[in-house]
Amino acid sequence: MKIIYKDGTVGECPQEEELHVIRHTAAHIMAQAIQHLYPQAKFAFGPATQNGFYYDVDLGEVKLANEDLEAIEKEMKKIVKQNLPIKSFVLPRDEAIAYMQERGADYKVEHMRDDLTEETEFSFFQQGDYVDMCLGPHLTYTKALKAFRLTQQSGAYWKDDSSNKMLTRINGVAFRTNEELEEWERLQAEARERDHRKIGKEMQLFMTDDLVGRGLPMFLPNGYVIWQELENYIKEKERRQGYVHVLTPCVGTVNLYKTSGHWDHYKENMFPAMEVDDEAFVLRPMNCPHHMRIFANRPRSYRNLPIRIGEIAHDFRYEASGTLKGIERGRHFCQNDAHLFVTPEQIKDEVAAVCDLIFDVYKDFGITDYRCALSLRDPADKKKYYDDDQMWENAESSLREVLKELGIHFTEEIGEAAFYGPKLDVYVKPAVGAEYTLSTCQLDFCLPMRFDLKYIDRDGVEKTPVVIHRAILGSLDRFMAYLIEETKGRFPLWLAPTQVKVLPISEKTLDYARDVTEKLMDAGFRAALDSSNEKIGYKIRQAQQEDRVPYMLVLGPKEAEGGQIAVRTRSGEDLGAMSLESFISRLQAEIAAKQ
Amino acid sequence: MKIIYKDGTVGECPQEEELHVIRHTAAHIMAQAIQHLYPQAKFAFGPATQNGFYYDVDLGEVKLANEDLEAIEKEMKKIVKQNLPIKSFVLPRDEAIAYMQERGADYKVEHMRDDLTEETEFSFFQQGDYVDMCLGPHLTYTKALKAFRLTQQSGAYWKDDSSNKMLTRINGVAFRTNEELEEWERLQAEARERDHRKIGKEMQLFMTDDLVGRGLPMFLPNGYVIWQELENYIKEKERRQGYVHVLTPCVGTVNLYKTSGHWDHYKENMFPAMEVDDEAFVLRPMNCPHHMRIFANRPRSYRNLPIRIGEIAHDFRYEASGTLKGIERGRHFCQNDAHLFVTPEQIKDEVAAVCDLIFDVYKDFGITDYRCALSLRDPADKKKYYDDDQMWENAESSLREVLKELGIHFTEEIGEAAFYGPKLDVYVKPAVGAEYTLSTCQLDFCLPMRFDLKYIDRDGVEKTPVVIHRAILGSLDRFMAYLIEETKGRFPLWLAPTQVKVLPISEKTLDYARDVTEKLMDAGFRAALDSSNEKIGYKIRQAQQEDRVPYMLVLGPKEAEGGQIAVRTRSGEDLGAMSLESFISRLQAEIAAKQ
Repeated sequence: MKIIYKDGTVGECPQEEELHVIRHTAAHIMAQAIQHLYPQAKFAFGPATQNGFYYDVDLGEVKLANEDLEAIEKEMKKIVKQNLPIKSFVLPRDEAIAYMQERGADYKVEHMRDDLTEETEFSFFQQGDYVDMCLGPHLTYTKALKAFRLTQQSGAYWKDDSSNKMLTRINGVAFRTNEELEEWERLQAEARERDHRKIGKEMQLFMTDDLVGRGLPMFLPNGYVIWQELENYIKEKERRQGYVHVLTPCVGTVNLYKTSGHWDHYKENMFPAMEVDDEAFVLRPMNCPHHMRIFANRPRSYRNLPIRIGEIAHDFRYEASGTLKGIERGRHFCQNDAHLFVTPEQIKDEVAAVCDLIFDVYKDFGITDYRCALSLRDPADKKKYYDDDQMWENAESSLREVLKELGIHFTEEIGEAAFYGPKLDVYVKPAVGAEYTLSTCQLDFCLPMRFDLKYIDRDGVEKTPVVIHRAILGSLDRFMAYLIEETKGRFPLWLAPTQVKVLPISEKTLDYARDVTEKLMDAGFRAALDSSNEKIGYKIRQAQQEDRVPYMLVLGPKEAEGGQIAVRTRSGEDLGAMSLESFISRLQAEIAAKQ
Repeated sequence: MKIIYKDGTVGECPQEEELHVIRHTAAHIMAQAIQHLYPQAKFAFGPATQNGFYYDVDLGEVKLANEDLEAIEKEMKKIVKQNLPIKSFVLPRDEAIAYMQERGADYKVEHMRDDLTEETEFSFFQQGDYVDMCLGPHLTYTKALKAFRLTQQSGAYWKDDSSNKMLTRINGVAFRTNEELEEWERLQAEARERDHRKIGKEMQLFMTDDLVGRGLPMFLPNGYVIWQELENYIKEKERRQGYVHVLTPCVGTVNLYKTSGHWDHYKENMFPAMEVDDEAFVLRPMNCPHHMRIFANRPRSYRNLPIRIGEIAHDFRYEASGTLKGIERGRHFCQNDAHLFVTPEQIKDEVAAVCDLIFDVYKDFGITDYRCALSLRDPADKKKYYDDDQMWENAESSLREVLKELGIHFTEEIGEAAFYGPKLDVYVKPAVGAEYTLSTCQLDFCLPMRFDLKYIDRDGVEKTPVVIHRAILGSLDRFMAYLIEETKGRFPLWLAPTQVKVLPISEKTLDYARDVTEKLMDAGFRAALDSSNEKIGYKIRQAQQEDRVPYMLVLGPKEAEGGQIAVRTRSGEDLGAMSLESFISRLQAEIAAKQ
């Protein structure tokens, strides 16, 4: 692929830069098309980005509609078809500024004057009637732009400063080939189809509302059913491993977070403090300090350890509004958190138990695409970490040993530890998007010290316990987003908000349907009756596609007379007629197997 | 009972004022005793109160210990025994001020000068060497004070203003007779014994911690067991009545609370706002607005109504630190809240169902000492209430009618309605302390309007639903405090943190005890093994008195050999030996009966 540099030389593009050049040239061609359609347009910045390109444009009073993006795209195609050559030239500073001033390029001139004060000359790229001040390089002719698509428009402040004028940002994507563009579009469609916000709305799982507050999603009845199932599921798993559970408030004093160190190291992620009378309160970003204070509440002996304190803990973090995404990334969420207070000798067994729990849970959810990383300190960078070589060696080798014993494949990542200790991070790869840390298990020698935690050891000496921070499902909110996207809302039976939808064919079997529904509810299932006057085909489609209900019972006169039920599955299978009893056995088995 | 007025006349005390006069005189006698023991003391205010009296005193550098209170009480008894006559006299303003100035009564002088500017003369009461500026009346001689007791001392600012000097407040109680005093002391002891903070500590149910924040209690594992049982219990009851449950964040924007009207009418009970970027957030004092927004989230038809949205809702209210009391009155609590969105025609049935639920729940908890009040608007005070006569008449008569139909005895309290509608309040009388509102059921025509809620009615017309706010258990926190004090921590089996404690007599039966414990846990009971080396008598006392465990299994060699268990109850009953199976049946029956 040939490209032209600012000095006019033409060369072969290094492969790793091809996409960047293609996208940068696409931005210029888009600007040219805009200039044709909106001669008054003034251009600000127009860079290539990770997946495409954009240009920020001052269109005066004009507000673009979606059709306008189509028109711009059409004009771009015309420019491409004309196959204009792309040339570069250089002008001395004053001449360059005068040249752009003449063309009315106010934003460019301001940028050249105020920001690029050191430049003695400026380079320009030109295709046809369009000239842009630019460092390049670019494609050598417009037809070399083979595959692109405008994707959206939004508002953006000049220089990202909200005291400046709001401009129109037009985004697009560009690729080497149409095949690459089509693959991208397929992935986009897949992501849209799986998007937990879309499915969440269709299934009425949760809602967000600007009046309640951005980043503060509310779980609707259907979503809260899943939430409660997840809560009960993980608490029961933990109870069986000897955890106890507590409930602590999602607020603490600023002094609490000064004691823990969060106020120094984590303040930028926190909501502002609330000062009232002689106290300052703050929404908590993490609940470790609360659990530390619970441990410190009474004298502890080595006989009491390990103490495993779990909580489905309400936490708040102040995320920038642009990064908020449904229940995947909110400002309020509930962590499946626990703190294990252990003696140094107990570290290994307890970490092993945490790993067991993680993989046991993954099995229940069918999570197989994950990887483990052992995050270690960088011994050369001692300032970054709590300073105690022996402690670190002990902790790191304990963690490593356990992972090996469990036969877990893991990579070691130097310099990725928390400041208080090493950790095991388990990353999962979702159906859409980048991998993320789902579970974690961290060794902490720091907070127990800061909170002056003590236990009396076997030898009668007061010692400081070690704390293991761990999360299995991560935050329940984000885990639910993950589940929605993995299953496309087709939750396994035990999690489905409605497990069985009972669909009478007509009025005549309504009583029978009501009877069946009640029997299912009495047996402990989440069954719902569709008593509407809609046609049976519509009822089935609604239950199957919109509500994603695992089982539908279609009840006509034949079923009513025979005291049977006709069962259809969400995947479209017709299981035929059976007795309610055998259907209930089937449901019970499926729930027990978490299928 | 004779009393002396400020003009020197002596008369018979009206019966309803006797206690007040006794207590007021007690305050003077206490001041005299203090003057004897601390000649430098300067007296501020010393009134009679609802249950006793106090005097605020400036003791200079002196800090009182508890022994000092005893000494003051002893000196008071001496003064009483001396049987000094109590006399009054009056002085003109200037003379009176000069008189007090001479005696160094700085606070009195300041009060006379700055606050009592209109008085042309002042009255004084004197017994022996003690004179006080006072309006009286008083007892006529000191021996008439027959029964009193000093109770506590604390700090108090002069004129309750924290920019003023901190004085010492000494409190006491006084009664007509020693019998009355003894009855008061008995009730005090009873209150101390039942105090949920004391029992909560003994049973490790919850804790408070100033570093976490005053008024922000944390539920410890034992307390959270009860909490979860209560949560599951009430949610299940509600589900059976057709409620759905949601989970909403305990924060909202200030605009949300401006829309609801809370920001105007309730701000003084709220934490300060958190302003960040272009939004202002606030900890929510009530969750009604969140539920309103959930209703407004999608189009609703009359066919969908009633919609009953319940939540165990985290709320925050900023209470003055002096009023905080364990989990009875905190700044964070969880309401057993629900909002019923109904058509006007449905009001009656829904209120009836709420009443059914209230009394059904009371039956389960054995609550019999309650009374109902119908809180109505004052029709003469129209400004205070949402203005719609027909609406009020409809709402009030609906409520009244339902209560009558249900055969409930209730009083009507004019002027006690909420501004948005009438309400039914159910008051309970706890074992200790004053009655309080446990359950409530309110009709609201105001918030649905402010949030512009709509549904399409049968006639195709858009209408505004009516909202019924209701709480059954009130706040879970306060309800738990109530339960603790009612039961003295001897919770019914279904709520007990530990239901069965297994007590091996010695090492020899430890394995058998472990086996029994595990079988009980597998059967779903909260069983715990006491594997300590303590004597069996100690183990029983600990389980019975401290932990208040309903059942103790005492396992010796005889039980181990016979594969039986010896069962003792918390009340001290010895049920003798039985098989584990019949014990389990007994437990199941007791839990089902909520005994």
